[in-house]
Amino acid sequence: MAHAEIIAVGSELLTPQFLDTNSLFITEHLNNLGVEVVAKEVIGDDRDRLTGAILVAVNRCEVVVVSGGLGPTEDDVTRDAAATALQRKLVLSLEQESILVHRFRQINRPMAPNNIRQAYLIEGAIALANPNGTAPGQFVPTRRGALILLPGPPRELRPMMVNEVVPRLRPMLPQQVIKVRTFRITGIGESDLDALIAPVYTKYTNPTTTILCSPGDLAVHLRACGKSEHEACALLREVGNRIAELVGDRIYSEKADEPLEAVVGCLLRKRRATVATAESCTGGMIASRLTDRGGSSDYFVAGLVTYTDAHKRELLGVKQDLIAKHTAVSEPVAAAMAECAVARTGATYGVSSTGYAGPQGGTPHDPVGTVYLGIAGPGGTRVSRIRHGGDRNRIRTLATQSALDLLRRRLRE
Amino acid sequence: MAHAEIIAVGSELLTPQFLDTNSLFITEHLNNLGVEVVAKEVIGDDRDRLTGAILVAVNRCEVVVVSGGLGPTEDDVTRDAAATALQRKLVLSLEQESILVHRFRQINRPMAPNNIRQAYLIEGAIALANPNGTAPGQFVPTRRGALILLPGPPRELRPMMVNEVVPRLRPMLPQQVIKVRTFRITGIGESDLDALIAPVYTKYTNPTTTILCSPGDLAVHLRACGKSEHEACALLREVGNRIAELVGDRIYSEKADEPLEAVVGCLLRKRRATVATAESCTGGMIASRLTDRGGSSDYFVAGLVTYTDAHKRELLGVKQDLIAKHTAVSEPVAAAMAECAVARTGATYGVSSTGYAGPQGGTPHDPVGTVYLGIAGPGGTRVSRIRHGGDRNRIRTLATQSALDLLRRRLRE
Repeated sequence: MAHAEIIAVGSELLTPQFLDTNSLFITEHLNNLGVEVVAKEVIGDDRDRLTGAILVAVNRCEVVVVSGGLGPTEDDVTRDAAATALQRKLVLSLEQESILVHRFRQINRPMAPNNIRQAYLIEGAIALANPNGTAPGQFVPTRRGALILLPGPPRELRPMMVNEVVPRLRPMLPQQVIKVRTFRITGIGESDLDALIAPVYTKYTNPTTTILCSPGDLAVHLRACGKSEHEACALLREVGNRIAELVGDRIYSEKADEPLEAVVGCLLRKRRATVATAESCTGGMIASRLTDRGGSSDYFVAGLVTYTDAHKRELLGVKQDLIAKHTAVSEPVAAAMAECAVARTGATYGVSSTGYAGPQGGTPHDPVGTVYLGIAGPGGTRVSRIRHGGDRNRIRTLATQSALDLLRRRLRE
Repeated sequence: MAHAEIIAVGSELLTPQFLDTNSLFITEHLNNLGVEVVAKEVIGDDRDRLTGAILVAVNRCEVVVVSGGLGPTEDDVTRDAAATALQRKLVLSLEQESILVHRFRQINRPMAPNNIRQAYLIEGAIALANPNGTAPGQFVPTRRGALILLPGPPRELRPMMVNEVVPRLRPMLPQQVIKVRTFRITGIGESDLDALIAPVYTKYTNPTTTILCSPGDLAVHLRACGKSEHEACALLREVGNRIAELVGDRIYSEKADEPLEAVVGCLLRKRRATVATAESCTGGMIASRLTDRGGSSDYFVAGLVTYTDAHKRELLGVKQDLIAKHTAVSEPVAAAMAECAVARTGATYGVSSTGYAGPQGGTPHDPVGTVYLGIAGPGGTRVSRIRHGGDRNRIRTLATQSALDLLRRRLRE
């Protein structure tokens, strides 16, 4: 398997505020070519240090990708450092010069004398087109493989990686196909999910399995490598199907970029149903997720955030004696809120939340972290009680996710 | 100035899914000691590669921090690699062994034979207590300074860095004091802010200035270094006051961890005022931010999300002829929504939003990205029209931020 090293250049990436995130994108595309990333480095705008790092990297890896430091100023040291490391000259490319002149004319800005630096290529390099900026990338064949220089801004780097780098690397590498399968999962914690599926995935090194977690939302990524698409897909099917069986309907999507609100939106649209919300502790978070997708007016009609008992009565129509008898954080009030959301708005389904998000509040029976979630509509009214630890933000986020999942399950009935 | 290098160990940090974020925390604390980070590296669980990286680092930097790879398994190579790089032995520490045995007894779990690996220290190392895990850190004096080994999990690394590492590094370094001043800013774009304040901050290398950006929300960080607290504070005052004068009331806070909704909440509480929302395109985002802080029931009473014309009429009470005459996305309807929010809920202030968040919709006069924001309450009803580019999420986020800022400004009148 070919090895790669990624070097990010820029003094700002060595401050407490900034992370190099380009390397994730680059890694994904290298992995898809069957190239493994074995080291990543961040170097400031320091010519000598960068020269040393590139020299070490090209001597031990087939693929070396450097991002950043291709601008027009003295601080932009990547071209110089790469040329020095490879003991090659920088040569003015007349073609790149004319592209640069043309580009400045196009954006109607004067070209500073400095900018001509961006038209210099390392001997033997292929220039990589940059439709979104002035710095061309460079693809430099080396003894072991290739040294690739990319501009730092993601909107310049990303299309260049996909359109210019990947097609040039592929023929240099052993033929193999990488395929990915993703499960998006909710309603189970990270360690429980791991305990559930580890007996399956630990038996395989191909596909590899990664579990990604955010509060209430997990993803399992399988990545298989085969000599053909058929082989890679067969591996994914074999392992993926066994995982899917164990996780069951806690899998809400197999699309990596499809959040829960999108799944709920599709189900509502398919059933020509609409939804309204009546929120207390989630304070509008359920409504804002339900309206997050374009076209959500097809299924979302209205929402009420009723933070006080008086507004639960007056805006929603929850009966005073119900609140007096059970308190606002209770199963009967959650049920009434969901039903009132339907009654007040004419929506097919009503979703409600009432709970203690903390840090203050709670009772011995319902301590901070307890939330009642109601769903009203076809199939009747049902309330779920959930309880989570953590801070206010975590409790509200988990309650919102659970509310959307309850609605998803109701819609699948 | 002393130099540092940070090495993160762990194969998972070389996948497309995970970033090393420990280095940001470590960098911040090193910077506060006057130590500059000159390179960062991520290495997989690879003994030889890590040995090489540590060897290079300790030869060129005074401070080298390695995070991760201190667990009990074969994959955890940091202790071995560090000992090899320094050409020192690993020695079983009886004290660490007894701490380990005690800890396992405490958490009532059997200690696997593997775990004894965690009781080995590099010759000459000081063990760093780990109250949150089994792996002690190690502080190893080197020829140029110190090599520091820290466990990878943030909840173990962070207290160890603060309580064990910083106090041991401080006496080794030249006496200096670092102070930080932060301005949180809204209502101006990144490049406009930079153009405004660059004439001031570019004149100084001390303090250094960093601008951090997220949609609609900027922060300027000044970091000054002095021989005494007095000197560092005087530098921050000098440069900070000039920046504050230029940015004016677009600065909403000088507390680094105080978001706009917290400032608005404080102002509402101070004025014993309450707020209600009537949202269309922001779909509950304004309400969810206003309820994000603990104790927000002191000032937030209720919110309505009215996505359809019918619900703007029926739930809020906006007059049909107003919508028919001006359409729902218009200044008069935004004004009416804010006023109806007050009328329906009895809140002191009403905040409204109506606009085209896209990707569909819009008119020639009000294309996608146009949002009308209304504030009703003491001082009358006023509507602002804003227009932003970008995707649906960006448009909604910027509209929410602007709505909160309009309320902040009204509350300061």
